[in-house]
Amino acid sequence: MSEAQTRTGTPAGAPRPDDADVVAEVALEKPLARSTEVDNPSSDVVRFTESQPLRLDCGVDLAPYQIAYKTYGTLNAEKSNAVLVCHALTGDQYVASNHPVTGRPGWWEIMIGPGRPIDTDRFFVISSNILGGCMGSTGPASINPKTGRPWGLDFPVITIRDMVEAQVRLVDHLGIRQLFSVLGGSMGGMQVLEWAARYSARVYTAIPIATAAWHSAQNIAFHEVGRQAVMADPDWQQGRYCDGAIGPRRGLSVARMAAHITYLSEEALHRKFGRSLQDRTQKTFSFSADFQVESYLRHQGSSFVDRFDANSYLYITRAMDYFDLAAEHGDVLANAFRNTTTRFCVVSFTSDWLYPTRESKEIVQALNAVAANVSFVEVESDKGHDAFLLNEPELFATVTGFVNAAARKRGIGEPPKGGR
Amino acid sequence: MSEAQTRTGTPAGAPRPDDADVVAEVALEKPLARSTEVDNPSSDVVRFTESQPLRLDCGVDLAPYQIAYKTYGTLNAEKSNAVLVCHALTGDQYVASNHPVTGRPGWWEIMIGPGRPIDTDRFFVISSNILGGCMGSTGPASINPKTGRPWGLDFPVITIRDMVEAQVRLVDHLGIRQLFSVLGGSMGGMQVLEWAARYSARVYTAIPIATAAWHSAQNIAFHEVGRQAVMADPDWQQGRYCDGAIGPRRGLSVARMAAHITYLSEEALHRKFGRSLQDRTQKTFSFSADFQVESYLRHQGSSFVDRFDANSYLYITRAMDYFDLAAEHGDVLANAFRNTTTRFCVVSFTSDWLYPTRESKEIVQALNAVAANVSFVEVESDKGHDAFLLNEPELFATVTGFVNAAARKRGIGEPPKGGR
Repeated sequence: MSEAQTRTGTPAGAPRPDDADVVAEVALEKPLARSTEVDNPSSDVVRFTESQPLRLDCGVDLAPYQIAYKTYGTLNAEKSNAVLVCHALTGDQYVASNHPVTGRPGWWEIMIGPGRPIDTDRFFVISSNILGGCMGSTGPASINPKTGRPWGLDFPVITIRDMVEAQVRLVDHLGIRQLFSVLGGSMGGMQVLEWAARYSARVYTAIPIATAAWHSAQNIAFHEVGRQAVMADPDWQQGRYCDGAIGPRRGLSVARMAAHITYLSEEALHRKFGRSLQDRTQKTFSFSADFQVESYLRHQGSSFVDRFDANSYLYITRAMDYFDLAAEHGDVLANAFRNTTTRFCVVSFTSDWLYPTRESKEIVQALNAVAANVSFVEVESDKGHDAFLLNEPELFATVTGFVNAAARKRGIGEPPKGGR
Repeated sequence: MSEAQTRTGTPAGAPRPDDADVVAEVALEKPLARSTEVDNPSSDVVRFTESQPLRLDCGVDLAPYQIAYKTYGTLNAEKSNAVLVCHALTGDQYVASNHPVTGRPGWWEIMIGPGRPIDTDRFFVISSNILGGCMGSTGPASINPKTGRPWGLDFPVITIRDMVEAQVRLVDHLGIRQLFSVLGGSMGGMQVLEWAARYSARVYTAIPIATAAWHSAQNIAFHEVGRQAVMADPDWQQGRYCDGAIGPRRGLSVARMAAHITYLSEEALHRKFGRSLQDRTQKTFSFSADFQVESYLRHQGSSFVDRFDANSYLYITRAMDYFDLAAEHGDVLANAFRNTTTRFCVVSFTSDWLYPTRESKEIVQALNAVAANVSFVEVESDKGHDAFLLNEPELFATVTGFVNAAARKRGIGEPPKGGR
């Protein structure tokens, strides 16, 4: 506090905080135009017709529906080098190429691409937008053919298993019998586990990263807060905000802010921001974003709503909450992997408190109980859950080593040397 | 999932979730009548006049203002047995007697009362509603005498130091020169530290519990989410919702839900709820509160808004974010306690991730650096931050032992034996 301030003998009546600066900027004037990506994605898309319904966990037969996907690299003649990448809550099929809405690089280019741990000079990488998503696969933002209007909350509640079943149809469509690998972090890891549990013969290797076999009470709680933040926004309109309405931009922004904290570690927040002030030398004694961490969070919230559908957020978080691979197998996780032929590489991060190492160990213990082929690495990192998306050399070394050894065993050739 | 469900061959088109069950119940029809407690509390109150302004950290002179308080027990002739209890974010002066709005028992009856660790048969306990609160001390819900309407966001932004300065006036008003003890948990602990730093001679013992000398980046982040949840609610009306309007009940409820998760530990959530379903035997494939933890959180949110003012929530979280005892002393925490004569008992809990033991140790290290009289106990508990409010025998034993030894030293008599 400056001398000038302490000496100010102003009478009662405080300086009024600048309203514009107080509330996180969420461009409310910008109507939430349904992105053309929802129905006609920039990526490839496979459309399943009325006669090819997908039987969902909830009992509903979904048809027609579509799955949007990208591929990178070339499928070899034996069709033995396909790798399926499963994305997390707010991810999509653009793992290794620019995002059509934000223009930003693919979300996992550090892991997937030429010369990367999943080397697209060697492997044929497939990544699809999950069922329930908003980047071209059928979800609550898609047009309900029965009404000609977006599904909204009439969309059936889906599960991780439903997402995987839709991916199975895509892989069938591509004519691939066995995937060399299925990998993914966070919710992507849940899909990996579900694939391995249901389709072991079709999954040569599985790489679940920073994930769990069931969603914990704390994680359900955080998701419920996010959903209630969306639903508390009057512009949510019981999910019927589509078609030019503003949509629950404020609520979705709050949901993203809360979630974002859980993706980082306390150490990472301390290292990145500490108590540093944002573009000012002293406290303003107001509700503006004095601290860098506040400014950062507000940005995370407001930029998210420009690329994501609020109802999709509800459906996908719900699917994660419902995920419980043990419950699907008589409450014994090991049963999920009985007689598995898949080779597993399980990875966790020391500072991940959303999916702590303990939960990865539960997966490893279940795999050990059925004498599965499993390697487990806990990567030392202070970056929290987000570490799986970031520059973590130990993660890359782990994946590279595991994948190369398995590829040799599977008879997949080395990438051309010096070709690039 | 039941057989009946899996066999249901219903055509596309899901069962519509019941809207009423989807969104957390927050009685929106109930207008947020300004509680009479705001201006005319059921407790005692001391009113400071226009000629007795309180100079705030932000430079504003606040006058008039009032502090609402309760006392328990009897002040002895030497006035040496007074104990000041400082409350946390959403606490108040009703530590050991029923709350006038909720009718529930005092929030710290397990710690304070006849025969309790802070024995009201022996000590004279004072607890006041903090400046900025909404239970009778002046805050944003109070009437601004300049306008005749509630302050709202015109109320000056306050700090922990301001809260303590207001308490000093109350203690002066009660004619007490030295407090035998100042104690409190969480934000209460921040006030304890501020008291000890500024008024060591007036504080014989200090008991900061589950607290920190500065608010961490992660804690600032969680608070900012809560504030944005309140401000995102259109019924907040830039803080001008008072006087019969509905007020930001939905936003405040979301804020409370998010905060509540941080008060518990992952273990406590797992032990209390796990993945148990609420009043149902299977998932409903909807957004209703299937899981007990969801139902519990919704209840925490919706019951909170019946007793707390949303603007107070903004101001108090801001005060906590601004708290940095080291920064107030040239960035060296030890300087805050140089030449202190106060005896300290610092307590933390193993599973508290909001104010982890590490942060208590920083306080202890600073006290050690100035050769202060300090004892430190880390209580083994799986209950998280909330442990300080719960039945924790090791906490009670620690406080009892410390207080009794200090009371003997201070020459405060034993409570009458067998008197009750």
